[in-house]
Amino acid sequence: MGELRSYAGVKRHSGNPILTRKDVPYPSALVFNPGVCKYGGRYVMVFRNDYGSFEEQRIEGTNLGLAFSEDGIEWEVSSEPLPMFVDEPDAIRIYDPRLVVLEGKLLMTFALDTFHGIRAGIASTEDFKNFELIHLSTPDSRNIVLFPRKVNGYHVRLEKPFPMYGRLGMERFDIWISFSPDLRFWGESKLLLAVEDVSFANCKVGPGAPPIETDKGWLVIFHAVDVDPSRGKNGWEDKWTKRYSAGVMLLDLEDPTKVLGVHEQSILAPETEYEISGGFRNNVVFPIRAVLENEEVKIYHDAVDTAICLATANVNELVGLCLKNS
Amino acid sequence: MGELRSYAGVKRHSGNPILTRKDVPYPSALVFNPGVCKYGGRYVMVFRNDYGSFEEQRIEGTNLGLAFSEDGIEWEVSSEPLPMFVDEPDAIRIYDPRLVVLEGKLLMTFALDTFHGIRAGIASTEDFKNFELIHLSTPDSRNIVLFPRKVNGYHVRLEKPFPMYGRLGMERFDIWISFSPDLRFWGESKLLLAVEDVSFANCKVGPGAPPIETDKGWLVIFHAVDVDPSRGKNGWEDKWTKRYSAGVMLLDLEDPTKVLGVHEQSILAPETEYEISGGFRNNVVFPIRAVLENEEVKIYHDAVDTAICLATANVNELVGLCLKNS
Repeated sequence: MGELRSYAGVKRHSGNPILTRKDVPYPSALVFNPGVCKYGGRYVMVFRNDYGSFEEQRIEGTNLGLAFSEDGIEWEVSSEPLPMFVDEPDAIRIYDPRLVVLEGKLLMTFALDTFHGIRAGIASTEDFKNFELIHLSTPDSRNIVLFPRKVNGYHVRLEKPFPMYGRLGMERFDIWISFSPDLRFWGESKLLLAVEDVSFANCKVGPGAPPIETDKGWLVIFHAVDVDPSRGKNGWEDKWTKRYSAGVMLLDLEDPTKVLGVHEQSILAPETEYEISGGFRNNVVFPIRAVLENEEVKIYHDAVDTAICLATANVNELVGLCLKNS
Repeated sequence: MGELRSYAGVKRHSGNPILTRKDVPYPSALVFNPGVCKYGGRYVMVFRNDYGSFEEQRIEGTNLGLAFSEDGIEWEVSSEPLPMFVDEPDAIRIYDPRLVVLEGKLLMTFALDTFHGIRAGIASTEDFKNFELIHLSTPDSRNIVLFPRKVNGYHVRLEKPFPMYGRLGMERFDIWISFSPDLRFWGESKLLLAVEDVSFANCKVGPGAPPIETDKGWLVIFHAVDVDPSRGKNGWEDKWTKRYSAGVMLLDLEDPTKVLGVHEQSILAPETEYEISGGFRNNVVFPIRAVLENEEVKIYHDAVDTAICLATANVNELVGLCLKNS
C-alpha cells in the first residue's frame, strides 16, 4: 500500500499536540488514546497514561488520566489518575477509554487486559471517583464505542473482536455491531465493515470515535491499519510495520447495520512530523472521538501513540465523502 | 504430561462405537461431536458429518446428521442431513451441535465457521426442518452449552472463547460462563475454569456436555487438552500433538459461577483401541452429552474424531469425585 493523503478539508489544529506527558502532574511517559465528550457544560477527557520513562523507552504500567477543558483545546489535567475500578482477580490494566453521554449518563468504554485475554468493558460514572461496572465481554475484544442514543429501542455498539484463531493465525480484524436492551446483555451481532471493504487497510479496521448523528445517517470515524513488511525500525519497537490512519463511513439512521457508504480514501493519515516520527509507535493517527458543534466536527486523535492531537472538518463534507460513490 | 487413566467407575459400552459413517445413508467420512437429548419420549442425536472419503483421508464438506433411538444405544439415522439454516453471507459451515431441552423447547447450540472468524450460535427447532436462529456470538467462540433451566431468572451458558491474540498467540483457552434474560442477549461473563486449574490439561479446557442438575450442584463434564510436542504422525495429520480427555466438575446450584470442586484426574481418557488409533485425529475422547436417568449418567463422546461412543457412570460417584478434595 503506497502513500496515503489526508482529505484536504480536514484541518490540523495549529497547536498540536494539544496534550502530552508534560501536561501530566504524575508519572507519565506516553499520553494517548483518550475518550472525550461534552458533559456538564465543559469538555471532559479520559486518556491512557503509560508511565515509566519516555527517554529510556520503558513502560512500567498504565493508568487513566482525567482532564477538563472549557474549549476542547486547552486542557487541565486533574491531580490524580482514575482509580482501578475493575476487581476481576486476573485483571492487569484498563486502557483505551472512550466517553459518551447516553440518556444523560456519562458512560466509559474501555479495554481490560487480563491473564486470560482482552475484554471490552462498559462502566458509568458521575464523579470519576466511583464507577459502576455494567458489562465485560468475553475475550478477545476491544475498541467498543457506544451510540449516543438507543436506535429502535436498543442500545448499539461497535467493536473489534480479535478472531485470530478463526482467521488462521492472521491479525486481520473487522468492525462488528451489536445491540442491547440495557447495556448489560448484548446480542444480534453482525459483521459491519470488513478489512476488504476498505481500500487503505490490509490488516485491520476498528471503531474509533463513537458515532455522531447527522440527518443523513450515523457518521462513523474508524481506524484502518495497513502493514508493509518493508517498514523497519520506526519508534521504540525493533520492527513496526503498521500504519494507522482514519476513515469515515455513514450508517443508516434507523438500521445502523446498513452501511450507506464508505469514503474510498483515508481522511486523516500520518503526514506531519508529529504523526510520523518521534514517538512510541510512529506512523500512527488513531481517531478516538468526534465532537459535533454547529457544523464543525472536532476529531481528537492519537499521534504516534505518544500525544493527543486535534483536527477539524465540516460535517456535511464528511457525509458527502461517504455518499460520493454510493 | 504422562499417561492418563480413566476413572474405574466409568464403564465403556461393549458395543462401541455406537454410530459410525457406515450407519449414514448419505455421503459420510467422519461422524463425530454429536448433541444428544431425550425429547418427545425418545432419544434424539444431531451429529457432525464430514463427507469426502475416509479411505483417502479427504474431507470435502460438513453437514449435520439426525438420528433417533428408543434406548440411546441403537440409532436410526434419518435419510437426509439437516438444512443449512444460517444465511449469513460469509458462512462456511455449521458443526459441533449440542442439544438441550429448556422450558419444553428443543434448543441446539453449534459452531459456525465464517470467513471472518468462528461464531457460537443458538437455534431452536421443533421438527428439525425449520430452525429459528436465536443468537450468534461475535468471533471467536465455540462449544456453547446451555443449562437445562434458568438459574435465578437467567439462562446460563458455558463456552470456550478463543483469546489467541490476548494470550500472545498461544492456543490456551478456558471455560467461561455467561447469563441471559432471553437467550438472545448475553452478558455477566466470567472466567469459570482455567487451564491451570486442571492438572491434566496444558493447552485448553472447554465445555463438553450441557450441565446436569443433581441435588449437590450442577455436574459438568468438560473436555481437557494436553499437548506433547514429541507426539508425531498420529491419524490423518502430519503432526497431531494433542490429546483430548474428559474431566468433571461441580458448580453451585444457585450460583453456577462458583466451582465447588474439580476432580483432580481425568474421568475418561483415550485408552482403548478405538480411542487411540484408526481415526482422523487419534488420542481423542471428547465428551459431548451426559444424560441422567435414575442414577446412571450416559456419557456420549467422540472417539478419534471419527465415531460416536457411549460410556456410563453413577451420578453420585461423579459428584463424589468432584467433592473429594474440596
